[in-house]
Amino acid sequence: MSGVVVPLNKKDDSEGRKPGVEPLMALVANDMEKVNRVILSKCGSDVQMIPEVARHLIDSGGKRLRPMLTLAAARMSGYEGEHHVTLAASVEFMHTATLLHDDVVDESDLRRGKLSARKLWGNEASVLVGDFLLGQAFRMMVDAGSMKALEVLSTAATVIAEGEVMQLATAKNLDTTQDEYMQVVHGKTAALFAAATEVGPILAGSNKGAVSAFRSYGTNLGLAFQLIDDALDYGGSSKTLGKNAGDDFREGKVTLPVLLCYRRGSESQRNFWREAIERGETDNSRLEEAIRLMHEHDALTDTIERARHYCNLASDALAIFDDSPHKRALNEVLEFILLRAH
Amino acid sequence: MSGVVVPLNKKDDSEGRKPGVEPLMALVANDMEKVNRVILSKCGSDVQMIPEVARHLIDSGGKRLRPMLTLAAARMSGYEGEHHVTLAASVEFMHTATLLHDDVVDESDLRRGKLSARKLWGNEASVLVGDFLLGQAFRMMVDAGSMKALEVLSTAATVIAEGEVMQLATAKNLDTTQDEYMQVVHGKTAALFAAATEVGPILAGSNKGAVSAFRSYGTNLGLAFQLIDDALDYGGSSKTLGKNAGDDFREGKVTLPVLLCYRRGSESQRNFWREAIERGETDNSRLEEAIRLMHEHDALTDTIERARHYCNLASDALAIFDDSPHKRALNEVLEFILLRAH
Repeated sequence: MSGVVVPLNKKDDSEGRKPGVEPLMALVANDMEKVNRVILSKCGSDVQMIPEVARHLIDSGGKRLRPMLTLAAARMSGYEGEHHVTLAASVEFMHTATLLHDDVVDESDLRRGKLSARKLWGNEASVLVGDFLLGQAFRMMVDAGSMKALEVLSTAATVIAEGEVMQLATAKNLDTTQDEYMQVVHGKTAALFAAATEVGPILAGSNKGAVSAFRSYGTNLGLAFQLIDDALDYGGSSKTLGKNAGDDFREGKVTLPVLLCYRRGSESQRNFWREAIERGETDNSRLEEAIRLMHEHDALTDTIERARHYCNLASDALAIFDDSPHKRALNEVLEFILLRAH
Repeated sequence: MSGVVVPLNKKDDSEGRKPGVEPLMALVANDMEKVNRVILSKCGSDVQMIPEVARHLIDSGGKRLRPMLTLAAARMSGYEGEHHVTLAASVEFMHTATLLHDDVVDESDLRRGKLSARKLWGNEASVLVGDFLLGQAFRMMVDAGSMKALEVLSTAATVIAEGEVMQLATAKNLDTTQDEYMQVVHGKTAALFAAATEVGPILAGSNKGAVSAFRSYGTNLGLAFQLIDDALDYGGSSKTLGKNAGDDFREGKVTLPVLLCYRRGSESQRNFWREAIERGETDNSRLEEAIRLMHEHDALTDTIERARHYCNLASDALAIFDDSPHKRALNEVLEFILLRAH
């Protein structure tokens, strides 16, 4: 193994601070303010419902990790213009559009603990405002003026949709293999992280090796991010559940912890999973049983282990670059992602 | 009034042939074959459901008027490359994506007389395959390499979505004015026709006046096209109904014939419309009554009259160009559109 190895067992760094996204946020704070302004202005429309729905989602937060990656990758690559702000905003719009369409596809009533847009305004508005944001995202990419970046982001749009369709096909299917599942994750999560990061060095006119390195960082970070999310839905390695935990179980999603647990279980345990995932028997006592089985079979710790593997790949990818505050901040994001599960 | 006036009362031309799209089809036949090949190849995906759903829609026909307009406008503008084929295919993909999302929004079970994709594969697949096609459309635009064309088409994507959202807001609202309704039509139908036509001269590097002329042709053709569609849903000026007629009535759509009929009616007739459109009382005897009222108030002939107005604008827009087979074919499309309603 080459490059920086993420010190994953270390929960605090030398100053006693836990790894977090704060150093990244601090580095891109000025640019991020501009991104937020662009986001607000490009949500605007004479059609009143559009800013209403869009801002519901955009205001409901999340860390805006994807646009931060675009900004950081551009600056770390020596980019000195302003188009990275436009591309970062368009990346966030693509992400928001995906969330709106996902809620329709999953028939979700909640998103980040709030009522989902489809619940508040209906499926129609969610589909159409998603389309509007996707259109705006492309318009903004055109404004940024880089054909190469446009190619990367429009390709990501198709790969994301492919990943989501693939997920439909694997839905409730306990025979899904780890490989098939990772392919879904590649599409639905990693593709946008990869594109978001890759367009930074593209804007800067970096060489092919540097562009690939950032792409690899983004892809592997995205894979790890999704796996940790999957583990957290069952409480991660701790035994306390987060506030939105259990959603995947109730929706019958076949995620990595479920796959592992199903394969490693006894026949009667497999029966339990079939009842839960295929037939929707997912009351609270069954959720508790599911978590118990996951601990029995190390399904959560091993999911986190897989995520650690991808974080290591991401860190390796950045190893070709000289030390810099940006590089350190990007590596710290990897540690942060893994720590979330503990 | 300047330019060529469409001879609308003449149903047959000097050779006794009815105006049609055949001359346009003949002019673009070679290019259109290439477009069809591109469409088939770009529907492909390792994710099996994507080509299945996409081809269901793409094979179910329609005249492919939009891509034909792109091809004809490019050639008429002297374009000699091959990128117009790529753009034409991406225009058709945008259109197909819109249809897929529309069916979800309208909860339609039928599309062009066949079961809709959402009925066959579910809302999820319709939303996601639509997203895939939209992503592919943008990838193909990038392939075509014209930033200006990309700008026009990505702007159209947002305007289409805005039009559809506006339509949600006017749904079942009989107080909608003609102006408001025309704004909806501008978005949901005319924007794509306009963009499809405009990108032709853009590729050819035509001057601003020529580009605007084609855009104006496309816009006004699109407006007329939608109004004739609205009239046909109630049988047009004839008293026989086409095979998919009555859909708008059953879905409670407030289209131009309805608006006119509602405004011109007596209080008891307005009450009839409120029961039908707002409360969904739309059985066959009520559809017959609706059509009777439309004839009583000239709602259909006046809708066709409005369409004729837009066709005249479209024809005027082309008047700056010298006579050519392409120009004649484009003008004939306008006559054809109006004739559909008789």
